[in-house]
Amino acid sequence: MNVSSRSPFRIVLLATGGTIEKSYDATAGALTLDRPVIETLLAHLDQPDVRIEVRRVMSIDSLAMGEAERAEVVAAARDCLAADDADAIVITHGTDTLARTAEALAEALDGPGCPIVLTGAMRPYRVADSDAAQNVAQAVMAARLVVPGVYAAFHGRVIPAGRIVKDYERLTLVEAET
Amino acid sequence: MNVSSRSPFRIVLLATGGTIEKSYDATAGALTLDRPVIETLLAHLDQPDVRIEVRRVMSIDSLAMGEAERAEVVAAARDCLAADDADAIVITHGTDTLARTAEALAEALDGPGCPIVLTGAMRPYRVADSDAAQNVAQAVMAARLVVPGVYAAFHGRVIPAGRIVKDYERLTLVEAET
Amino acid sequence: MNVSSRSPFRIVLLATGGTIEKSYDATAGALTLDRPVIETLLAHLDQPDVRIEVRRVMSIDSLAMGEAERAEVVAAARDCLAADDADAIVITHGTDTLARTAEALAEALDGPGCPIVLTGAMRPYRVADSDAAQNVAQAVMAARLVVPGVYAAFHGRVIPAGRIVKDYERLTLVEAET
Amino acid sequence: MNVSSRSPFRIVLLATGGTIEKSYDATAGALTLDRPVIETLLAHLDQPDVRIEVRRVMSIDSLAMGEAERAEVVAAARDCLAADDADAIVITHGTDTLARTAEALAEALDGPGCPIVLTGAMRPYRVADSDAAQNVAQAVMAARLVVPGVYAAFHGRVIPAGRIVKDYERLTLVEAET
Repeated sequence: MNVSSRSPFRIVLLATGGTIEKSYDATAGALTLDRPVIETLLAHLDQPDVRIEVRRVMSIDSLAMGEAERAEVVAAARDCLAADDADAIVITHGTDTLARTAEALAEALDGPGCPIVLTGAMRPYRVADSDAAQNVAQAVMAARLVVPGVYAAFHGRVIPAGRIVKDYERLTLVEAET
Repeated sequence: MNVSSRSPFRIVLLATGGTIEKSYDATAGALTLDRPVIETLLAHLDQPDVRIEVRRVMSIDSLAMGEAERAEVVAAARDCLAADDADAIVITHGTDTLARTAEALAEALDGPGCPIVLTGAMRPYRVADSDAAQNVAQAVMAARLVVPGVYAAFHGRVIPAGRIVKDYERLTLVEAET
Repeated sequence: MNVSSRSPFRIVLLATGGTIEKSYDATAGALTLDRPVIETLLAHLDQPDVRIEVRRVMSIDSLAMGEAERAEVVAAARDCLAADDADAIVITHGTDTLARTAEALAEALDGPGCPIVLTGAMRPYRVADSDAAQNVAQAVMAARLVVPGVYAAFHGRVIPAGRIVKDYERLTLVEAET
Repeated sequence: MNVSSRSPFRIVLLATGGTIEKSYDATAGALTLDRPVIETLLAHLDQPDVRIEVRRVMSIDSLAMGEAERAEVVAAARDCLAADDADAIVITHGTDTLARTAEALAEALDGPGCPIVLTGAMRPYRVADSDAAQNVAQAVMAARLVVPGVYAAFHGRVIPAGRIVKDYERLTLVEAET
């Protein structure tokens, strides 16, 4: 796999909401998901030969993601694979149920034709010291290097679907102990 | 290769200077390499199970890097491989001669025991809209995923030593056309 | 009044909480007042001959500020005036009840011996596009230039106590129409 | 003087270049004055009832400002006063010769009809830890509060023309000792 040719590497980014996208609403005096921020985050990444098309699936807190919403995410990924117009799929997702969505994707699309990499953030892109830009940048790099399959890329780590665990103490995603 | 176990992934980062490390000196009224910034950059990355030890090799503009300096970088990498205390080596380097240093490393250390990933930036970490943090974050991700060898990781791309070319028009690193 | 001598201009800053100090708590997944941020904000202002001593009075949302809390703020200001160790007093405060606290101060301390300037922010210092640093910088400048009395300094404007009104539509503080 | 009415406070900002406006040119690998940045800086200030019209006079390092250029700045200020379309004039200027330009303005326009406030920065707006936004925010506040005359507003201090001295050791502007 040539990871560096000048022909653009095509990523479809499925945005679902989650902490990564929360921004401050001064009228509400709180963080909301009213304004999408993924586009802004991507505009600050510098990768001239990576083409990222953002597809908005939903804008919800991942704690609010039930089976119906999860099915929508799976459907969006399936459509993307069917259209065969992406070299990889990146999904931005809240961290609380990211592991479950990854499993649902792995079960539904067994043997996907390209890497599907889920990521998110412990701190919103629009707050100080956010890990959002790092995680998306690393998810892009991982999407370009791993073999087809479903993974989480988070805090400098890649974890295969089925083994993703949220570490609530250290506020990160880790691989399940064996 | 288990890329996600909780046992820390150990990186030795060899810092050599380059644009990525330039910071503004208000007395000189110019960008200088007087103050190292890699430590600050790394402190803003969120990757609890990646241990990065910074080793300062030099602090020079890569246009000032001659064969003697290049030999020092190779020696530092060789020492690190000999000590076998790193899972990967990341080297921060100016972009003008990064390709040549990568080649020197590949020739001198043929078949290194771990990935050696060079990176840098087109805009200093300490100036607006810098690509430094993205490149280092992606270099870390790449260092964790590629097979042993010498590479550049830059702007969402991984390029093997021997094929790295600086694109002065688009201000990025690309892979040589074949 | 010599506003520029090299002898430091001494400000006592009474911190009370409010939106300006809210920071993101990744465990709670929300903005809280758990960590003071005024010290960090001040550390990023560059004013070598202004000495600002921060005194923590409380850390509450100004909607939670009742008469008891308001009396504490007045008492803290009175102590400061009695000690006569400040050239001006700056108070950081939530915007919802800032006007009321300004009135309470003006009534209780009629004819204070130095300027008392209240300020705050519509967006926390620790979120993107915050107006916090601007407001504090302008409050410091105003504190140095106005005659003794009680004022709000906010969004490039100075408003005397008794005439401060929060404009909930435009999210700013304005002077009452006459 | 009503400093807080809702009728906008009208400022004409005369931009002349200087450190405050330097931005990184990745092709040159250096800080240049090729791109104006004052407009961007102002866009990040939150002051709904302050109208700032930027007029570009020149884009030079203040060390390059000779008597001819200085005369242009004076002429631009005179035109503005003649048109009487501003409540105050703010001038962004390099710090090395800011004092001289302030004197030239005071001499040429003796008894100007409104405050003329010069400011600048020790660190460009587009580099880390810049003092640019603070200085402009404080210059706006000062412009709104001082009596007509020519001043520097810098690092939380206001200094009348004729007494402005650059402190090269502490990297700030101070008032001349008497």
